[in-house]
Amino acid sequence: MIKQDTEQLVDSAFCPFFHEAAELIGRRWNGVILRAMFHGLSHFNEIKRSIPALSPRMLSERLKELEQAGLVEREVIPSTPVRTEYRLTEKGAELSTVFDAIEMWAHRWLVPDSAT
Amino acid sequence: MIKQDTEQLVDSAFCPFFHEAAELIGRRWNGVILRAMFHGLSHFNEIKRSIPALSPRMLSERLKELEQAGLVEREVIPSTPVRTEYRLTEKGAELSTVFDAIEMWAHRWLVPDSAT
Repeated sequence: MIKQDTEQLVDSAFCPFFHEAAELIGRRWNGVILRAMFHGLSHFNEIKRSIPALSPRMLSERLKELEQAGLVEREVIPSTPVRTEYRLTEKGAELSTVFDAIEMWAHRWLVPDSAT
Repeated sequence: MIKQDTEQLVDSAFCPFFHEAAELIGRRWNGVILRAMFHGLSHFNEIKRSIPALSPRMLSERLKELEQAGLVEREVIPSTPVRTEYRLTEKGAELSTVFDAIEMWAHRWLVPDSAT
């Protein structure tokens, strides 16, 4: 490969938007929190109970970050007692293609005896 | 929703293989390192130069981890001086669907003025 081609590759190989997306989706616990929401869970305690080893404090922190990033919205329902529900926004819901792809890859390559 | 349904959702919402995959792909820098390799870069210095703010030490550490995870293989070419090339394994290359999906999502939602 001649030098100029390599330089062009080096220049195009990085994309700051891809970087931001990968770090956001991949930030510790975010993947499984969003997956739980894709599976229909919307209450704090349900999400927490579904994920082994996730502390309430960490879940609370991550949900706030996901809300700030515009992937999740928080709705306070004025019942007695007050209930809080978390839902995926359109921006969050459109990550389903990413999550489906991770799921397929994981089952092909990480489940014992599944790889050929 | 009756209680039993919620319990079933809580049980199915977590998948340890998905969790492992999401944390591996999303571990800090791994996304952009693998993306650089998908874009054809195979030399340590090229990958390093393509990613702003990534230190040689961090790249070296991540490449070792990706090698241990079976996503990347390292080939030492007995030239003078000795050259080392990094390539995606089949397991690594099959992440292309995940990376394509992240790329599409990032360009739809993170690039300024691209979201409708």
